[in-house]
Amino acid sequence: MPSYQQILLKQRPKNGQIGAHLFETVEREMPSIEDGEILLKQTHMSLDPAMIGWMSDDPDSYIEPVPLNSVMRSSGIATVVESKHKNFSKGDRVMGMTGWTEYLVSDGQGFNKVDPELNPETLLCVLALPGLTATQGLLNIAQPKAEQTLVVTGAAGSVGSIVGQIAKAEGLTVVGVVGSDEKAQWITQELGFDGAINYKNHDLAERLESLTPDGIDLFFENTGGEIQHHIFDRMNAHGRIIVCGLIADYTSEQPAPGPSWLRVIKKRLMIQGFTMPDHLHKSAELQQQLLPYVKAGQIKYRSHVLEGLESAKDGLNLFLKGQNKGKLLVAL
Amino acid sequence: MPSYQQILLKQRPKNGQIGAHLFETVEREMPSIEDGEILLKQTHMSLDPAMIGWMSDDPDSYIEPVPLNSVMRSSGIATVVESKHKNFSKGDRVMGMTGWTEYLVSDGQGFNKVDPELNPETLLCVLALPGLTATQGLLNIAQPKAEQTLVVTGAAGSVGSIVGQIAKAEGLTVVGVVGSDEKAQWITQELGFDGAINYKNHDLAERLESLTPDGIDLFFENTGGEIQHHIFDRMNAHGRIIVCGLIADYTSEQPAPGPSWLRVIKKRLMIQGFTMPDHLHKSAELQQQLLPYVKAGQIKYRSHVLEGLESAKDGLNLFLKGQNKGKLLVAL
Repeated sequence: MPSYQQILLKQRPKNGQIGAHLFETVEREMPSIEDGEILLKQTHMSLDPAMIGWMSDDPDSYIEPVPLNSVMRSSGIATVVESKHKNFSKGDRVMGMTGWTEYLVSDGQGFNKVDPELNPETLLCVLALPGLTATQGLLNIAQPKAEQTLVVTGAAGSVGSIVGQIAKAEGLTVVGVVGSDEKAQWITQELGFDGAINYKNHDLAERLESLTPDGIDLFFENTGGEIQHHIFDRMNAHGRIIVCGLIADYTSEQPAPGPSWLRVIKKRLMIQGFTMPDHLHKSAELQQQLLPYVKAGQIKYRSHVLEGLESAKDGLNLFLKGQNKGKLLVAL
Repeated sequence: MPSYQQILLKQRPKNGQIGAHLFETVEREMPSIEDGEILLKQTHMSLDPAMIGWMSDDPDSYIEPVPLNSVMRSSGIATVVESKHKNFSKGDRVMGMTGWTEYLVSDGQGFNKVDPELNPETLLCVLALPGLTATQGLLNIAQPKAEQTLVVTGAAGSVGSIVGQIAKAEGLTVVGVVGSDEKAQWITQELGFDGAINYKNHDLAERLESLTPDGIDLFFENTGGEIQHHIFDRMNAHGRIIVCGLIADYTSEQPAPGPSWLRVIKKRLMIQGFTMPDHLHKSAELQQQLLPYVKAGQIKYRSHVLEGLESAKDGLNLFLKGQNKGKLLVAL
């Protein structure tokens, strides 16, 4: 009897330890579909830092945790292999919340057909969560203006790299904070950032000062860590800070304190936290905002592709270790 | 020869010490005026916490520091005692940036004639900086909605007491943080706040929890201090925080750290710092927003009136010690 595999969440992370021990791979019988349903075969699965939060049952979380013993939540690209749904045909490629599974049955809700001209990597690396997050956070919240100076942390990451490239396209001076010299080279030489800082080196304050002689107008925060305070201390009057991620704090028992609010007053700063579940209802609009940059060739990306469903189990650890070299994907 | 007194700023505060030693009283000859000028006799002078910042030459300050050896900056009410200006007549009462002086000559710029029906105390306690600050911060930035819960620190202060009363008029649940049981009683029994917390007592977290069972939607911050973290930890999703003052940090060598930004993300919080110099150009509009509450008798105030110009020199210390019992004024 034909079967397929899926991965269930069995335990919640404790003491910041994530990895294969939290999951269990199970074998399922191939399902049959009914009227109004489609059978999807997943081809590419997205791994995102936010998923670390989805596994936890923190009562303060902005999203329902993944229930224990159910399929781990994720987005991905799938091909329709059988359809009894009027809006989908065999061979259609769709994007949506697939989960960690090789196959799934859906009534089509939450799945959108994707432009066949765009390859699955571009779809997941740019036009899915990372690009929509960058678009909402930078264009709609930070509201960049040409000539301003933007600093983005996690600048070689899936969101940060797109934030910086949109900002460059809009005429800003862009400095990226990264965790390796190789990433620093990539964002300056390949993506066109004006400067890069490896936060693992010394002299963060001096380096930041020399790269942002006019201060900092916009700060797109993806990571947290010591550099946050140095960036904050250089914020200009009416500066805007977008808090999108704090990977350094996600698994720590005691989150690091934030900067004093004294500068918030003195410089009349605006700090806005945001998460994409609040904005996914306008995904289509966000994609329309982003597409012109993609079509103009202004958004380059790097994917880091893991092979096979099983590789997802330890894949999220790469975020915590800063070892992912671009947007993490799993090819099934 | 007739003369009058004014007070000059002679030194900038060091180590958080403010008081009479920073100032010098000088005797001036009574001036004569020329065409287009008015001679003003100040009757009531406002003392505001922001003035502590104006004395410092902190390069990060949002406003030009008061130059050494010049008249200390302040706002006040004055009577026109002589006029060679077409828009002003002898006997007119005006409000504007008068400074610490008994008399001054002006070309009228920045001075507005005030409604003779409103007494000088209402003008300085409500329709001047305190009320305009409350109006801008609460109505225009926090954007309160009926049924929300607001917590305001410095709740018996000149700004905080008006913030809370406007919020009550708008149908919010309002909890105020104060520094004495007497102030707690005043804001609940006289001003109609739903609850009060004396931050000098113990069990801040428990007390806050029992007063805000549905969490906190809006936080109007005037003081800083430990209570800030307890309030922050109870902010609801999409909560808005207005950072208007941090008196606890103004004179400390090392400002206290702020809360971690982890909750900023989880709850998608907005934090906005603001200071009134950015908004004084729309004073007339702000007064129009505020007047209906004043005319409806919804804004009560308490003034703490010091007597004589000389009393200003040590007056600002009352803010730092939390000893002012309402809006500080000097009657000349």
